[in-house]
Amino acid sequence: MDVTDGLEVPQETLDAEIKSFFESAPPLKNGDDISEKLEEFIGRNSLPSGNGSARRVVCVTSGGTTVPLERRCVRYIDNFSSGHRGAASTEYFIEAGYAVIFLYRRGTCQPHCRSLPEDPLLECFEVTDERNIRVRQSDSEAVKRAITEHHAAVAEGLLLKLPFTTIFEYLQMLQMIAISMRSLGAPAMFYLAAAVSDFYVPWTSMAEHKIQSASGPLDMRLVQVPKMLLVLRKDWAPMAFCISFKLETDTKILLEKADMALKKYKMHMVVANELLSRKEEVVVVTTNDKVSVHRDKTQVGNDVENSLIRLIVERHSAYLENPNL
Amino acid sequence: MDVTDGLEVPQETLDAEIKSFFESAPPLKNGDDISEKLEEFIGRNSLPSGNGSARRVVCVTSGGTTVPLERRCVRYIDNFSSGHRGAASTEYFIEAGYAVIFLYRRGTCQPHCRSLPEDPLLECFEVTDERNIRVRQSDSEAVKRAITEHHAAVAEGLLLKLPFTTIFEYLQMLQMIAISMRSLGAPAMFYLAAAVSDFYVPWTSMAEHKIQSASGPLDMRLVQVPKMLLVLRKDWAPMAFCISFKLETDTKILLEKADMALKKYKMHMVVANELLSRKEEVVVVTTNDKVSVHRDKTQVGNDVENSLIRLIVERHSAYLENPNL
Repeated sequence: MDVTDGLEVPQETLDAEIKSFFESAPPLKNGDDISEKLEEFIGRNSLPSGNGSARRVVCVTSGGTTVPLERRCVRYIDNFSSGHRGAASTEYFIEAGYAVIFLYRRGTCQPHCRSLPEDPLLECFEVTDERNIRVRQSDSEAVKRAITEHHAAVAEGLLLKLPFTTIFEYLQMLQMIAISMRSLGAPAMFYLAAAVSDFYVPWTSMAEHKIQSASGPLDMRLVQVPKMLLVLRKDWAPMAFCISFKLETDTKILLEKADMALKKYKMHMVVANELLSRKEEVVVVTTNDKVSVHRDKTQVGNDVENSLIRLIVERHSAYLENPNL
Repeated sequence: MDVTDGLEVPQETLDAEIKSFFESAPPLKNGDDISEKLEEFIGRNSLPSGNGSARRVVCVTSGGTTVPLERRCVRYIDNFSSGHRGAASTEYFIEAGYAVIFLYRRGTCQPHCRSLPEDPLLECFEVTDERNIRVRQSDSEAVKRAITEHHAAVAEGLLLKLPFTTIFEYLQMLQMIAISMRSLGAPAMFYLAAAVSDFYVPWTSMAEHKIQSASGPLDMRLVQVPKMLLVLRKDWAPMAFCISFKLETDTKILLEKADMALKKYKMHMVVANELLSRKEEVVVVTTNDKVSVHRDKTQVGNDVENSLIRLIVERHSAYLENPNL
């Protein structure tokens, strides 16, 4: 039986689809700026650190991508993701000594800010009798910790934040990051937690103006986004340790699809998660095993990402010993 | 020529469509809580105020609605709107003495916070040498004003904030608000600035699980959201002063469509705005005239909403003198 369930796209077709995707995408607005930041960040973190070896660098992707339905974008399809997993994982990677490139959807959850309410400025501050503002006593520790730790990570050069909105921006930036990280070799990691659109409307066939709702139903045809994971593994950064995510709402097909992704895209690990239980448990699928990772409920405020990143860091260490296994 | 371009839906069909929309919508999670807040807010603001007459109350809708494509929602269609116009207008309405029910999309721009960066907690605060946090000098005034004014408006009972995400939540909440505001009569106003989806997938025909991207393109059929403006005007709150918005990217059809909306939905005013110039100029269309409203460029930090709300308040005053004209 074909493990890719007979749906594998031939290499030439995939290459042509990827070429067509990038050629038809609107160019990144701040490409030069991103390029400069990446060069500086990776250059600094590829120098030997305290213990004599180069620092490990992980690109964490987080939040959902959008697919514009009109060129002058009024309507778009969005993939739901709060970005909580990516933000939490970033914190644990920094604690574990990694430098993190945080490629995130604008407006989603930020590292060190997970415990704050949605609108912290209006929710956590109050006006004093002298008409000054101050942090509410109950939020004081969380707010102080968020700002202190976040600013420290950025100032120490351990956190580079790059925001995206559309699928076009996301894939163009992921390609830039991967090609920049190639030189790092096996200490580089990709932790692809973003919820990436499967379907898109090619820029060239997109309506220039707002779609009119004059009469009748709206029929739309979306085409598949070419699978970039394989080209990331093969061409962009072949030595990097790669982890992708599989989210399903139907548990029956989840592990099967995670296994398929592992083989099809030659990932080192696939993290399988089900929409409703994803904050309590995930299953890490590798070629050799399936490890169920749970939130440690004995510790207050603990989350599944804590255990997950610990496992990933161990496996990355093993990979660094033997990248060719 | 039929001013509604021959596309008018017969009343019985519209009623049936609306009934079917509400019946098939998932029930509001916190309906009782919203109901209680509304009753309290409208009760308080319908009492005679300082000058002997009841306070005017406006419902400002703001931000875009989403259309879920799956019941366990991973993907949805979104309408782009930062919520800047709704937030700015809310401030000017409060300054003009109105009480505001701010029905807004979660995560969009909040009143009094327009001049702050997207992520104010991380952008405006810094860590001192003593590891305390403080507002950056350059942002100090804006942050202080935002928190002080916002909290004052809520504390004085002039601002009730109700968040929505989906088209189902939005229309159910709009109906609740409108029916609650009916008793206010002509001092009630609707300022419908939200970007509301034109198309939706009926809950009953929606996929239970995440749509699979196994093979080939995705074909989707969306049906039109029934036009609720007419039923708002006729049944929910017949005496209220109603302003709707028309956004187009094609200036050629904009005024024509605004005019059509005015007649079709019996609005008192339609604000016509074009995507690229909407922060500089809008055209207010009424039965008797078309008034072009510009941002006053001679004043630093001014915006088009300032002039727009001034015009609307004048027209609302005239309407209060003669509601039946």
